[in-house]
Amino acid sequence: MTRIRRNLIRALLSGDKSYWELIRFQDDSLPKFEEELSNLLNEGLVSTHDHHFSLTDKGIAIAAEEHLSPYVSPVCDACHGKTILLKGPYENWSKQFQEITKDRPKAIKDYDQGYVITEDTIRRVTLIHRFGDLENKDILIVGDDDLTSLALGITGLPRKVKVLEVDKRLVEYINKKAESLGFKNISAELYDVQNPFREELRRSFDVFITDPVETIDGITLFLSRCVEGLRGEDSTGYFGLTHLESSRKKWYAIQKRLLEMGFVITDIIRDFHEYDLDAEDLLTQGFRVVTEAPVNVGAPDTYFYTSDYYRVYAVQELKPLITGTVVLSDELYYDDEAFVTAER
Amino acid sequence: MTRIRRNLIRALLSGDKSYWELIRFQDDSLPKFEEELSNLLNEGLVSTHDHHFSLTDKGIAIAAEEHLSPYVSPVCDACHGKTILLKGPYENWSKQFQEITKDRPKAIKDYDQGYVITEDTIRRVTLIHRFGDLENKDILIVGDDDLTSLALGITGLPRKVKVLEVDKRLVEYINKKAESLGFKNISAELYDVQNPFREELRRSFDVFITDPVETIDGITLFLSRCVEGLRGEDSTGYFGLTHLESSRKKWYAIQKRLLEMGFVITDIIRDFHEYDLDAEDLLTQGFRVVTEAPVNVGAPDTYFYTSDYYRVYAVQELKPLITGTVVLSDELYYDDEAFVTAER
Repeated sequence: MTRIRRNLIRALLSGDKSYWELIRFQDDSLPKFEEELSNLLNEGLVSTHDHHFSLTDKGIAIAAEEHLSPYVSPVCDACHGKTILLKGPYENWSKQFQEITKDRPKAIKDYDQGYVITEDTIRRVTLIHRFGDLENKDILIVGDDDLTSLALGITGLPRKVKVLEVDKRLVEYINKKAESLGFKNISAELYDVQNPFREELRRSFDVFITDPVETIDGITLFLSRCVEGLRGEDSTGYFGLTHLESSRKKWYAIQKRLLEMGFVITDIIRDFHEYDLDAEDLLTQGFRVVTEAPVNVGAPDTYFYTSDYYRVYAVQELKPLITGTVVLSDELYYDDEAFVTAER
Repeated sequence: MTRIRRNLIRALLSGDKSYWELIRFQDDSLPKFEEELSNLLNEGLVSTHDHHFSLTDKGIAIAAEEHLSPYVSPVCDACHGKTILLKGPYENWSKQFQEITKDRPKAIKDYDQGYVITEDTIRRVTLIHRFGDLENKDILIVGDDDLTSLALGITGLPRKVKVLEVDKRLVEYINKKAESLGFKNISAELYDVQNPFREELRRSFDVFITDPVETIDGITLFLSRCVEGLRGEDSTGYFGLTHLESSRKKWYAIQKRLLEMGFVITDIIRDFHEYDLDAEDLLTQGFRVVTEAPVNVGAPDTYFYTSDYYRVYAVQELKPLITGTVVLSDELYYDDEAFVTAER
């Protein structure tokens, strides 16, 4: 029995689940998840009613044959497995961030946007602080729909924060907000990842933060640009990667590229980010997670979309794998595993 | 200012620390830690008294110049950043494990032994369960001074557990205990990692668990042997790796080898294991962490030695990097970064 089938059955052994909840109980990509769920329905092991799934008698019998027991999640209730807590000063950061970003621009599908929940932006910044990568550092952010730059402004710890962002609305929002809050060391500028960095941005940062698109070409390009910005050995980088739209084979290709560039991976924290995707958008924009679901699955009743957080560390001089101008079109954003991304 | 210097100063800004506590507040290897601490003492930024270290006025002034603030750890108080909690059924596993292993053999330096605290053996097993790698699986353990096999026996979930272990005392202990507790699917046998597996052990397991020695040659050999035991694509492996005796450059070499063998890294959980090292042994066996410390540091007052937990996943057919018999002597156990390992 495959791992995904096992994981789905043991999740259902401990109670009925919605489609969106079930996604959180398995460890495979969304295409595989949909395929396996269809199989379970077709084989009569699982039934569905009112947007929920449950095991049939046949399913329960097979669970017993496979020695599966009802799954009790051991994931920490306090930090949700994210390793850190927003307590003390970090709780204050979180409150301030919620307050100042109330009027943030809505995510738009044009640039594969989708925000992490606001607490996760602060958890991100807190984690980076834990690892000693904030204080007095020059930080580069490539793509900032999560508004990490403003979270960094609240901490008051970095020396300089530069945002490069393709969405004009966000560039204006960040600059205006930074000005009104007196964050003098934070600025955003319009930037398209297809272009190399201008000279003044090269080799000027200690840390990069990005949330790349998850095609292999796309992520290679994002990371290569980030590398151009870093000072070199001892620099670090942070980015999210899902397993929902990136299979383990894609992860493998990405990890190979990271090592080729001169990075070692120091941390991978599972489900560090939860995304607050707009339910209306999700159901109407033709995302394959909905259109190819085996039954009508209803609106999400939980944060189903997560990404794992990578920290990488430069052990040597860095080498971008892509330099110069690159013209990328739809394939930058969209591949076979893109199930929560709009086709263009 | 280097990251390690920054991390040490901000830790001391929030209060005096012992040598052993300070180790937990930095992210570098022990050789670098000792070097940096010596520098801080020699430059008059840090002073020491009664086995504790504190910032001098000069140190405090430099902290201000560098915009450092007293460090408040955001690490989760509940799970200590290990992502999971021993609650419900997992708490029962932990209690049973404590009970049945009370008479465990003492760690001996001959084989670079050193136990993780008993809760961490159960956390390990719980984590593996979270990832769907226990139920009805065939599990291979290469080196089992942590007695993970008996913890697996308590869960009752795996199909088969085979321990390969070089220490005769442990082989006998595990077999005797398994027999007396009725763990019929658990067995241990004497094995030296210098020898390839006998035919019946090859391609017979879904999961490996090991806690390898941390020289590059040593870990390559351990992982290659584990690979011989795995069934191939979709198999997984779990092992600990410290940053205390393995620099990031060594991590890089190890990650390259993992990818070469056909694994992708799915998780790296920082400080997942804490080791319960014998204070008497530590102070008397000539470990460099003591002998090369800048001052007399006293006995450990905290679990200072930790390792991060790796989960790896086979995305393709696996390829061991070493096959056949290998004769390895001291260099299997000991390299320049071995600071809590006995020279032989």
